[in-house]
Amino acid sequence: MIRTDGRDVKQLRDIQIETDYLMHPEGSVLITVGRTKVICNATIEDRVPPFLRGQGKGWITAEYSMLPRATESRTPREASKGKVTGRTMEIQRLIGRALRSVVDLESIGEKTIWIDCDVIQADGGTRTASITGAFVALTIALGKLSEDKKLPLFPVREFLAATSVGVLENVGVVLDLNYEEDSSASVDMNIVQTSSGEYVELQGTGEEATFSKKQLLELLEFGEAGIQQLMDVQRAVLGDLANKIGERGMELE
Amino acid sequence: MIRTDGRDVKQLRDIQIETDYLMHPEGSVLITVGRTKVICNATIEDRVPPFLRGQGKGWITAEYSMLPRATESRTPREASKGKVTGRTMEIQRLIGRALRSVVDLESIGEKTIWIDCDVIQADGGTRTASITGAFVALTIALGKLSEDKKLPLFPVREFLAATSVGVLENVGVVLDLNYEEDSSASVDMNIVQTSSGEYVELQGTGEEATFSKKQLLELLEFGEAGIQQLMDVQRAVLGDLANKIGERGMELE
Amino acid sequence: MIRTDGRDVKQLRDIQIETDYLMHPEGSVLITVGRTKVICNATIEDRVPPFLRGQGKGWITAEYSMLPRATESRTPREASKGKVTGRTMEIQRLIGRALRSVVDLESIGEKTIWIDCDVIQADGGTRTASITGAFVALTIALGKLSEDKKLPLFPVREFLAATSVGVLENVGVVLDLNYEEDSSASVDMNIVQTSSGEYVELQGTGEEATFSKKQLLELLEFGEAGIQQLMDVQRAVLGDLANKIGERGMELE
Amino acid sequence: MIRTDGRDVKQLRDIQIETDYLMHPEGSVLITVGRTKVICNATIEDRVPPFLRGQGKGWITAEYSMLPRATESRTPREASKGKVTGRTMEIQRLIGRALRSVVDLESIGEKTIWIDCDVIQADGGTRTASITGAFVALTIALGKLSEDKKLPLFPVREFLAATSVGVLENVGVVLDLNYEEDSSASVDMNIVQTSSGEYVELQGTGEEATFSKKQLLELLEFGEAGIQQLMDVQRAVLGDLANKIGERGMELE
Amino acid sequence: MIRTDGRDVKQLRDIQIETDYLMHPEGSVLITVGRTKVICNATIEDRVPPFLRGQGKGWITAEYSMLPRATESRTPREASKGKVTGRTMEIQRLIGRALRSVVDLESIGEKTIWIDCDVIQADGGTRTASITGAFVALTIALGKLSEDKKLPLFPVREFLAATSVGVLENVGVVLDLNYEEDSSASVDMNIVQTSSGEYVELQGTGEEATFSKKQLLELLEFGEAGIQQLMDVQRAVLGDLANKIGERGMELE
Amino acid sequence: MIRTDGRDVKQLRDIQIETDYLMHPEGSVLITVGRTKVICNATIEDRVPPFLRGQGKGWITAEYSMLPRATESRTPREASKGKVTGRTMEIQRLIGRALRSVVDLESIGEKTIWIDCDVIQADGGTRTASITGAFVALTIALGKLSEDKKLPLFPVREFLAATSVGVLENVGVVLDLNYEEDSSASVDMNIVQTSSGEYVELQGTGEEATFSKKQLLELLEFGEAGIQQLMDVQRAVLGDLANKIGERGMELE
Repeated sequence: MIRTDGRDVKQLRDIQIETDYLMHPEGSVLITVGRTKVICNATIEDRVPPFLRGQGKGWITAEYSMLPRATESRTPREASKGKVTGRTMEIQRLIGRALRSVVDLESIGEKTIWIDCDVIQADGGTRTASITGAFVALTIALGKLSEDKKLPLFPVREFLAATSVGVLENVGVVLDLNYEEDSSASVDMNIVQTSSGEYVELQGTGEEATFSKKQLLELLEFGEAGIQQLMDVQRAVLGDLANKIGERGMELE
Repeated sequence: MIRTDGRDVKQLRDIQIETDYLMHPEGSVLITVGRTKVICNATIEDRVPPFLRGQGKGWITAEYSMLPRATESRTPREASKGKVTGRTMEIQRLIGRALRSVVDLESIGEKTIWIDCDVIQADGGTRTASITGAFVALTIALGKLSEDKKLPLFPVREFLAATSVGVLENVGVVLDLNYEEDSSASVDMNIVQTSSGEYVELQGTGEEATFSKKQLLELLEFGEAGIQQLMDVQRAVLGDLANKIGERGMELE
Repeated sequence: MIRTDGRDVKQLRDIQIETDYLMHPEGSVLITVGRTKVICNATIEDRVPPFLRGQGKGWITAEYSMLPRATESRTPREASKGKVTGRTMEIQRLIGRALRSVVDLESIGEKTIWIDCDVIQADGGTRTASITGAFVALTIALGKLSEDKKLPLFPVREFLAATSVGVLENVGVVLDLNYEEDSSASVDMNIVQTSSGEYVELQGTGEEATFSKKQLLELLEFGEAGIQQLMDVQRAVLGDLANKIGERGMELE
Repeated sequence: MIRTDGRDVKQLRDIQIETDYLMHPEGSVLITVGRTKVICNATIEDRVPPFLRGQGKGWITAEYSMLPRATESRTPREASKGKVTGRTMEIQRLIGRALRSVVDLESIGEKTIWIDCDVIQADGGTRTASITGAFVALTIALGKLSEDKKLPLFPVREFLAATSVGVLENVGVVLDLNYEEDSSASVDMNIVQTSSGEYVELQGTGEEATFSKKQLLELLEFGEAGIQQLMDVQRAVLGDLANKIGERGMELE
Repeated sequence: MIRTDGRDVKQLRDIQIETDYLMHPEGSVLITVGRTKVICNATIEDRVPPFLRGQGKGWITAEYSMLPRATESRTPREASKGKVTGRTMEIQRLIGRALRSVVDLESIGEKTIWIDCDVIQADGGTRTASITGAFVALTIALGKLSEDKKLPLFPVREFLAATSVGVLENVGVVLDLNYEEDSSASVDMNIVQTSSGEYVELQGTGEEATFSKKQLLELLEFGEAGIQQLMDVQRAVLGDLANKIGERGMELE
Repeated sequence: MIRTDGRDVKQLRDIQIETDYLMHPEGSVLITVGRTKVICNATIEDRVPPFLRGQGKGWITAEYSMLPRATESRTPREASKGKVTGRTMEIQRLIGRALRSVVDLESIGEKTIWIDCDVIQADGGTRTASITGAFVALTIALGKLSEDKKLPLFPVREFLAATSVGVLENVGVVLDLNYEEDSSASVDMNIVQTSSGEYVELQGTGEEATFSKKQLLELLEFGEAGIQQLMDVQRAVLGDLANKIGERGMELE
């Protein structure tokens, strides 16, 4: 049994991460996962949301959007409709939460890092590509902040990447679903993991279907394999910055 | 190590499900989980959303809200603010998706079942209580529909219930977190399962933290134990209707 | 001529007021008028709206909402539609204004009392039931405030209750209309009165119809009779607090 | 005791009603009550709202607005704020309801009459001036409709006008309050009456105050006197059309 | 070839500017251009928008609206729809920008002048009539401000007026288009000019058509002729204030 | 006197137009003008807006947006704010109007072409770059439509491009302003022209300043020179399609 794009069940699509993609943001990345393309920008703002003021702690928040023709047929703009859909909100919250889990927010002071993930072309897996790309943009922005503030230790504790896994009828468990696969999958799971193999988010959903514990374990195994490869790409593009990730952890041991 | 409300780590709070709670809805339930109270109403509407028209298939959708003083301090109404928060949207989508996974939508025809979950008192676990209560309200409403339409087989395939599990520092894995526990948990997971033990939704989140595979497996075990008890309560209050659940499955075997 | 539910023209429906209904609010009441059920919660907030700041005076404001299935057919949520209807705004303003008329706002200091009236089951008279129940929730909350601040005199000057009266074709003037009666009445009047018999609000409306002065006087007489009975129930459930109402008035005489 | 503008307690301000004020509307009036000026336009639209379709009956609906500088200090536009205030909604509903009470909606067929009341200068009593002026604009528009459709009987059954009455400290009951009086009145009542002396709307409100039945009766007497004078002005400007009002009533006797 | 209303191609419609039109605003004008009527009010507010705070400089901003029946068929209110259309925003920005170009904002201090242009009757050219009328209202308001603050020099540097020109098939270039002409014109241009003949705004648009440089020059010539006449009317109604315009310029020479 | 980026006053920035930029749209272009980058996508939809239904004629409409970090500091998303700004609406309307002026809308039948211009990096001139790029995307999409429908003549009548010109203090008139220049220019003019030299839009604005006729003529001359060069780039990237533009015009002569 083979996948429609010829991949093996446990094979990721081609990954590229282009850094310094745009000129203005503190961190800017174009991530390409197969035919999915997401611009991930990180902005450093010198204040925190009201609920954090005066605590000396930073914040990371994310926004996500798709160009109207990122998709096969045109999706009306949320700005024109005057409201953000539930799907967008869910994804924005997921990206922000995931990134916060590997950053030492105390050490960055009262700053907000805004992450903007704009999907310019969609072929499945836009939220996981957003997390994987956003991690790189965030790390670059924190690298600049770290230099400017001469921080003794780098605030990023671990690598973070995400992928999707799922169950396809007649195929079984597969890694990194494209749009066509995602539309027909009976189970869909997004996994966000760190370089030490810890889970940050696990969102598994049966689409008018259910899944057994045996399937769950296989899904997790496929996901872990993919995430390790994604981190290899992240490490390569980050260069010297990659070595600073986890300094903090080492010190604390 | 003991929990602040004296429960054992693997112990649910007291559960009550009062049926026929309000006079107008086709199915109406007040579910009480510890001090959390949710009114779950099911409404049958004789049409489906535009994307399903003409396919002869039904739909289940959910809305979720909290009274302003369901919470310790007053939460402003979403109606007054003119928009629904991301958290509310996430929960609404979860409830709808979960319920659709155990109902044969073809057999109910072009009808929409609206599920309204209104939290009147909140002490943690409102979304999982909503699912557990909504399943009962939905089943009652479908029971009436089934009688009226003289359906040969009942459209509900399995029982469905949900609970939360989490990791508390100095305590470890616990079942069914109350609000105080939920606020301090490093890991929080919502599990939706069917009576055959299959997963419908699994949403695990590290709150500025992560979790290992070993912890994941313990979380799943605790969740399963709690869900079986919740289904005992559902079965008891549904009476004869409980016996009709799964008829369809039996026939198809 | 008799009413469809068998009541006499000048007879109220059964009234129950359950206090301490929810755990979080400073005052919490479930009022039942026939089959109409409203949860009335009072919240004390330590600040006033901008237009009152720095005047040393308090404020009372109200919000009103119905569960979607409080009604015979499902009413879409105002939060989902993104705006509050004119009917809701009218009722919210009425409740707030009525309650403010019997409270000495100077004596409570720069605090806002939020009144939330959430109709969980509707069968006519929801706005008058809201006022009658909200008065009790407010008095309980002010009782707690009064104790904490050791106020020499209680800020509530008089009892306050409300009912509806109307003109039914073939029946004439009736007291306390249920939904069916309300829908067919040619004249509908809401009366809010104090324990000394003074009017606070009088809102009489001909529904594509008009009414004479003679009918007006009869409507007022029926209303007054009903309101006295409602105050008997309020007095009974308030217990000792009931005796503090009007202290202020006595002193000033 | 005399009023600040020198009027007697039972004296209306100067009234002018200019017909054919604007060129486009089917009925267009500028009503001036003292320094309050309202443009009242009536538009005939060839369809009814969804809830009336197919019943062969017409509808009358009203919208109300103020120019930002109709008032002493500038009021932000509702369009700029993106929502209509509760006060505006209350007034719109009142105007529409009042006008519908004196028109035979069946006889006008499936048409909507839109009434637009735009206050260009405000000095108290804008809602009652709107009703009094709108009645004239509506009658003129129905006059044109009646001619075109060669209706045997004119659909307006009675004259309709409105005024305000109130209680001023140190003065007592007064008729037709200007803005300064309205701001300091302890009781404020809007009265809408027909030419036969029947009430259509009665909205009496204690402003952090209450009123007795004795005061109520005096308020009603003052209101009735004012409304008769307003109808004299309406009759004068309507000319021949005035004679057609009530034809229907006469026939039915 | 003659125009449908009998005017010569280079002839303005009748112009009237009535000052002191409403009682509350600091400057209030009713401008009539043919059958187009616009109320232009100027309000002085003692603060500036956030982006200007602390710079000691003033601001001028404009809002524009039409009564629903200013037009041939009724236009729904922007307040009821909950948003302002693109056309309205474009016009508001144009009016504000145009007025700011002839006022010395430094000399008025940290104040905002709000310009409200409310079209009560529309027959083409409402935005240019708004600018021409708003200039007069603004000058009157600044006259009052100038007197109160005893400013040595008047802040208005030049007269400012606006008109439209266009190309009509079979007629050619025409000045001051009415609604009927505007609807059928292939080219439409709004010109805002000062008394020294300088351009402030030039907005020429081919309506599914284009225009040559030769036509452009003729359009500009027609516009200039019209604007000079509009300024004659402005000068006449401003009386003594007219002489103060440009004082500043003279001094600086 | 020289420009800050070293260009001659009459020199465009570097221009690149990359076609087939994204996979889904019928026409997709990335236009780069100096450091300004805009993705222009064209979508063909098989229906027209309500006001055109049943006329057998097509429509072209445009939407414009900027990524939050297209700009130096982050601009909040319009979707998050829930409304589109006046600036965005103005630009959207301009792009749509300009494109419609060179397309034979009758010949494309009842279809809407949606143009989406998404600025990913902004350094001045985003609206004119959008028009120049959108023309190419539109032509490509119409090329596909034309092939599919075997249209005898191509619906695009002329080339269309846009640029900005302005007046810089101490420099004078310049072509194609970058962001820094645009911020300090006293006059700013956008010019949209066709290949035959006809004007489609001319929008000249004094920024708290004015401009003379002499300056206007120089601005027009500079603009024309730039637009001819932009059309050379358009022609080059369109290849064979370029030859089809204007077929229609030739036939009609």
